[in-house]
Amino acid sequence: MPLSRSRLISGEDLGAVAPALKRYADDVITHDLWTRPGLSLRDRSIVTVAALIARNQTAEMTQQINAALDNGVEAREVSEIITHLAFYSGWGNAMSAVAVTKDIYAERGIDTAQLAVADRFPLPLDEASEGRRETAVEAGFGAVAPGVVQYTTDVLFRDLWLRWELAPRDRSLVTVSALVASGQVAQIPFHLGRAMDNGLTQEEAGEALTQLAFYAGWPNVFSALPVVREVFELRTD
Amino acid sequence: MPLSRSRLISGEDLGAVAPALKRYADDVITHDLWTRPGLSLRDRSIVTVAALIARNQTAEMTQQINAALDNGVEAREVSEIITHLAFYSGWGNAMSAVAVTKDIYAERGIDTAQLAVADRFPLPLDEASEGRRETAVEAGFGAVAPGVVQYTTDVLFRDLWLRWELAPRDRSLVTVSALVASGQVAQIPFHLGRAMDNGLTQEEAGEALTQLAFYAGWPNVFSALPVVREVFELRTD
Amino acid sequence: MPLSRSRLISGEDLGAVAPALKRYADDVITHDLWTRPGLSLRDRSIVTVAALIARNQTAEMTQQINAALDNGVEAREVSEIITHLAFYSGWGNAMSAVAVTKDIYAERGIDTAQLAVADRFPLPLDEASEGRRETAVEAGFGAVAPGVVQYTTDVLFRDLWLRWELAPRDRSLVTVSALVASGQVAQIPFHLGRAMDNGLTQEEAGEALTQLAFYAGWPNVFSALPVVREVFELRTD
Repeated sequence: MPLSRSRLISGEDLGAVAPALKRYADDVITHDLWTRPGLSLRDRSIVTVAALIARNQTAEMTQQINAALDNGVEAREVSEIITHLAFYSGWGNAMSAVAVTKDIYAERGIDTAQLAVADRFPLPLDEASEGRRETAVEAGFGAVAPGVVQYTTDVLFRDLWLRWELAPRDRSLVTVSALVASGQVAQIPFHLGRAMDNGLTQEEAGEALTQLAFYAGWPNVFSALPVVREVFELRTD
Repeated sequence: MPLSRSRLISGEDLGAVAPALKRYADDVITHDLWTRPGLSLRDRSIVTVAALIARNQTAEMTQQINAALDNGVEAREVSEIITHLAFYSGWGNAMSAVAVTKDIYAERGIDTAQLAVADRFPLPLDEASEGRRETAVEAGFGAVAPGVVQYTTDVLFRDLWLRWELAPRDRSLVTVSALVASGQVAQIPFHLGRAMDNGLTQEEAGEALTQLAFYAGWPNVFSALPVVREVFELRTD
Repeated sequence: MPLSRSRLISGEDLGAVAPALKRYADDVITHDLWTRPGLSLRDRSIVTVAALIARNQTAEMTQQINAALDNGVEAREVSEIITHLAFYSGWGNAMSAVAVTKDIYAERGIDTAQLAVADRFPLPLDEASEGRRETAVEAGFGAVAPGVVQYTTDVLFRDLWLRWELAPRDRSLVTVSALVASGQVAQIPFHLGRAMDNGLTQEEAGEALTQLAFYAGWPNVFSALPVVREVFELRTD
């Protein structure tokens, strides 16, 4: 797909249009943000790719998916991030990401044998926790949109979330990153709590927000901060 | 416009990048979602096209506008959905949709004779209801942004909404779908109430949300659900 | 970059797909909106370009950045708007704008000598006001996301906002326009207050909303209106 490639911005182009922005790119992003402790390089790539897919930003995606693969994210995991975000950021966003990723896989010689296959080994389900979620959502919205409630149970929590191709902690990190990056503040409490249940630390969550400030913009992060603080405060761990 | 076409994702491409997503596309979306009762195929297409335009997703638009035309949406109605969403999702989104649709009309041999012409026959206006809206908006925001208040009356409610090229119930369905798809929760109560006044049933609204879960992403729908429930509860019909 | 150009919609294309929309474009937007008093042509261009960058709408950007340059926005200012919005609407949005602007500068023979250079003359900082902001943000979020808090001080308020390439009042107009255009209602009070401190009048803010109704869509503006009204009411000037 020549589209994403033709829109790739070189450092030279950036310097020709916005020299100050090139300086920020070099000094602040490349040599500072990406080298910060508190969140691994692999996690920073997961956060960044999730933000770009959630915001449908194909222009930056080629570079960042390649960086993710260089930073230790497996191709299988990239494919699963796209699959996950088809549901958590809309089908069209996933299709744009597929178009970009298809070319990257072709260039890198990645074929389907290396990718997710039919999920023969679903992860174990915490029936008690999922039962509470189902009861609450059914009580709240079962009469409003029964189809949404049904698919949420059958396709998301009893299927997608149990796929082994992405660890639950990473899947949660993808989800929370996408929510922040698309301004979905109301959905952060449930999924940030779940992310921390799945092993994401408070420090990592704070650094994910730092990464997102640059890749999803300051306003999205400042709108998320009060909600994130409240989630942190309400936890007893 | 070769752009949208070159970004069209084939089933083969999808299978090569994200085999699991291809399985969801076939099993859940094609063979389940689109065949559900409660909302006609034509309405599902209207909801889906409105969501894609509101989210500016040209990659998926070619396929879905073609599907809409196949599912009984008239070309005149497609053009009017774009016209309507120029106001309800921003001018640039409409221009992207025009670029995609131009090629579709060329391929299908649809010319302007089949499209909307100058609106010679405006629909009747409910002066009492519109008067209440004008009074409330003028009182609330007339001193803040008089231009917005004036255009809302003159261009939207006394012109655009009276165009016969799209039935009021369908125009409302387009509006509500676009609001949910772009996270505009605060504007849902007025327009969902208007949609139901215009004939949209509660069951259809619930199924529209189900359709939107897939095409606008789960978070947008879960953020809309509490507001939709409240609209349902406050109505006496 | 042929992308943006190939997606440019001509009046003829628009008339072929949506004749009514062409009529609105001519009658309401070109001959009415853009000629309204209360906000200069230069300011309308700043608002419009900021909205398009914040919404990542490259299809419309070529036309509107050219219009901005015709309306008295300096190339240096266009580059600085992009630089500013890299932080306030996300890195990827700025990169898309760079791709579009690179071609425009090439066509117009604008080279780096005319653009922003290293910021040798930072604007004076109101230490008292900035100190209050830092204390409040540190108290609120210093323990949640220390990286965000640090970059907000060091890179945004003690660096980016002090750059002379864009007047503080214009920088504020860009920021507020981007917030409204991307639905970031929660961040409007701080930045609209700052914009008015920087010289933006209430009438100009109201007209900026009118401009944004068309370029960012009615729902974004109606969601912003109650917040804008409250900012106006709380000010004593």
